[in-house]
Amino acid sequence: MQLTREDLERRFRDNSAPYMQQWMELLRFPSVGADPAHDADCEACADWLCRHLAGIGFDARLLPTGSKPVVYGQRAGRAGAPTVLFYGHYDVQPADPLDAWTHPPFEPAWEGDRLYARGAQDNKGQLFAALKAFETLIAADALDATVKIVVEGEEESGSAGISRALPEWREFLAADVLMVADTGMAPNGAPTIVMGLRGVVFMNVALRGPDRDLHSGVHGGLAPNPAEAAAELAAGLHKDDGGIAVDGFLDGIAAPPPSAVAAAMQAPFDTALYRERTGCEPAGGERGVPPQVRVGFRPTLEINGIHAGYGGAGSKTVIPAGAEIKLSARLVPGQDPERCLEALARHLAARVPPGIRLEILSRGAAGPGFRLDPSSPRVAAARGVLEGLSEQSPVLHWEGASIPVVAALRSAAGAEPLLVGFGSEADNIHAPDESFSREQFRLGFLYTGLMLQRLHARHGEQAV
Amino acid sequence: MQLTREDLERRFRDNSAPYMQQWMELLRFPSVGADPAHDADCEACADWLCRHLAGIGFDARLLPTGSKPVVYGQRAGRAGAPTVLFYGHYDVQPADPLDAWTHPPFEPAWEGDRLYARGAQDNKGQLFAALKAFETLIAADALDATVKIVVEGEEESGSAGISRALPEWREFLAADVLMVADTGMAPNGAPTIVMGLRGVVFMNVALRGPDRDLHSGVHGGLAPNPAEAAAELAAGLHKDDGGIAVDGFLDGIAAPPPSAVAAAMQAPFDTALYRERTGCEPAGGERGVPPQVRVGFRPTLEINGIHAGYGGAGSKTVIPAGAEIKLSARLVPGQDPERCLEALARHLAARVPPGIRLEILSRGAAGPGFRLDPSSPRVAAARGVLEGLSEQSPVLHWEGASIPVVAALRSAAGAEPLLVGFGSEADNIHAPDESFSREQFRLGFLYTGLMLQRLHARHGEQAV
Repeated sequence: MQLTREDLERRFRDNSAPYMQQWMELLRFPSVGADPAHDADCEACADWLCRHLAGIGFDARLLPTGSKPVVYGQRAGRAGAPTVLFYGHYDVQPADPLDAWTHPPFEPAWEGDRLYARGAQDNKGQLFAALKAFETLIAADALDATVKIVVEGEEESGSAGISRALPEWREFLAADVLMVADTGMAPNGAPTIVMGLRGVVFMNVALRGPDRDLHSGVHGGLAPNPAEAAAELAAGLHKDDGGIAVDGFLDGIAAPPPSAVAAAMQAPFDTALYRERTGCEPAGGERGVPPQVRVGFRPTLEINGIHAGYGGAGSKTVIPAGAEIKLSARLVPGQDPERCLEALARHLAARVPPGIRLEILSRGAAGPGFRLDPSSPRVAAARGVLEGLSEQSPVLHWEGASIPVVAALRSAAGAEPLLVGFGSEADNIHAPDESFSREQFRLGFLYTGLMLQRLHARHGEQAV
Repeated sequence: MQLTREDLERRFRDNSAPYMQQWMELLRFPSVGADPAHDADCEACADWLCRHLAGIGFDARLLPTGSKPVVYGQRAGRAGAPTVLFYGHYDVQPADPLDAWTHPPFEPAWEGDRLYARGAQDNKGQLFAALKAFETLIAADALDATVKIVVEGEEESGSAGISRALPEWREFLAADVLMVADTGMAPNGAPTIVMGLRGVVFMNVALRGPDRDLHSGVHGGLAPNPAEAAAELAAGLHKDDGGIAVDGFLDGIAAPPPSAVAAAMQAPFDTALYRERTGCEPAGGERGVPPQVRVGFRPTLEINGIHAGYGGAGSKTVIPAGAEIKLSARLVPGQDPERCLEALARHLAARVPPGIRLEILSRGAAGPGFRLDPSSPRVAAARGVLEGLSEQSPVLHWEGASIPVVAALRSAAGAEPLLVGFGSEADNIHAPDESFSREQFRLGFLYTGLMLQRLHARHGEQAV
């Protein structure tokens, strides 16, 4: 059968009490992935989720990763129906500072429509709303797709376990669509489809001069200054117009499809709001390129940290022994992460001033960037679903950030990512008094339930 | 009468026991000027010195400065004889780390020819050797010059008290020569006349962007990056050839007299030794300019510190909220400290990238640079004295460092500085196990005794 929006709304209303009860149960696990003191809590949380998945109709088990287990559930669909891989995470951010919370972070508490707890939104709330949709469709025999659910326990600390394990899981994770409910709505509350994520690479380098800090009078004009060298190298990464000056770094980038740029430009960039939210003008990146394009379609190369010499109060007349620069870059489709790192290393090495030694302390890549095609039928389907859920038109958003595990899952499963979530700034994720509203939960539930049904052809609808 | 070198040597030998005893007494005061816990020790040390000066023939008193008192002694000379202002300091560096000392730092202990204690050289040893020379000349009625002695208690922490007081002391400090025994010998042990000191100015600036660290993915391409701005500003202070790129900063610098440059070049620069002592090549400063000239005759503009963003382990993908740069410059004669600061501030302000705000946190000048003329008769006299004291020929040294209080005293007293000291690297000043040898003490004693007599015309010698 097929559940209409009205069917789903009724079933949500009828089951709201147990849904909320179970959600609160999930939130009581202090599954802080980054804190070894909470290892047992993470295991207990994974166990609970595993049993929960089994209880709602999945063939569920824990997959060892060498660190935190991944909760895995699978349910075979009808022959010919598409395969959906759903990703979520059960770990949460640390709750510190504890005394900044109105309610204890692991004792979920309602205030009006909002449930307050660490993880209320990120990601237990969004994850659980989707699980309840799966449950509802299964109970109504309305789920045709084959569904594979992956819930990891290390998203907030780098997804090390799942990243290590993924190469071996390629075969059984193969899917057509990768659904992720770990994103938010536009600042104005419009439902949002994330049309792309940037990739990310990083490199930390040291510059070394004298074997200790030297007196800047005795040695000024004699000793080479690593702080100055660091400034020169860092400044040399960009051209005067804000563009990246590293030879080879931009290789492979094709101009974005005009339809995508046009769609991104439909969401006007609110400079006044940006100023209010960040305290600064949106003056970064390439001059003369619109902000939506700079963040959604262009790469960056940022200095995340630069440190050399004296940093205390007042002055100290030293020539520092060394300097460190922490760099990271956001990549767009076409850029190969490893080749970007090579280009960066070559660029730096070629510009080290006399008397200074460059050392690459660490470098790494956490996946390439990707973009969806605005003309994809699945994007159109998601758009259609979201149009029915909100008074505001859905927004297509080319995101500047990276979710490395999504890039990795996309590549491992060969699936088209579909990132739709209902977070808002009011949720205070990663901060004290995190919350998620019953209304946001309901939106996640309805979207997942409707979208899953749109992913396979039925009743004359077009399969996506 | 006139004391010959042999006279002085004999008197030193004869009085060596009480001289060493008194020196050890002076070293027992833990007169750590920077540590308020030692305020009473500093006062006691100043009292002791004041009584000592009175005991050897000076009209002595303590001059209040608002912080540590200056010990002042004066003795009128014969009519027509020159006036000598002698400068020293009774404060010492902190003795930490205490457990790195072989003997307790304030219990002077002999090992062979060396006396170990904090301040053994810097400056109590060099100061006391000179005082013993004054005492000897006075006792022998061989001191014609009018002598003014100034011993401050804040040299190691910035000379704030005396600097504040100097403008009011101009009249009674007026002198022809300013003798300072707070410097060292050449690395090869040759007696050294410091022919110039550079001045110093400093400026600490902040660059501000967003009101907090921002996510470098979400905001990369939107938010301006203060770390990048800091790198650009810092890198823009120098030209590709290592020269200073700040408009107006070099105004007023005349080419150094060829005779001075020639004299400086006579002390060959030992690159291998420099490498061994610093761990780096002498590759700083202006390309194509000899090291002796770079450090002795050219100004610098150094980045003493640059700090922005993440500095911990690994990576953190932030666009930092702000950055700080700590700058200082060494100035040569002709450069006006205040005008240099103005030029620097203008240069920075004109180059702040869009979206970034520049704030000058602090700025200050600690005196201009000065140089002696190698043809000065007093330099010739000092050279003559030193030639008789060592097997090695005396070296004329144009020093890259600054002694701000010397510049201030020079200007207040209208005197020609004559900086000759007998420190060596082996003395470990500012470090554990500081020491000064009886032989170095004796050299200081002989030099002061002979030089004072050369400063006035007698027995047909030329007055200098």
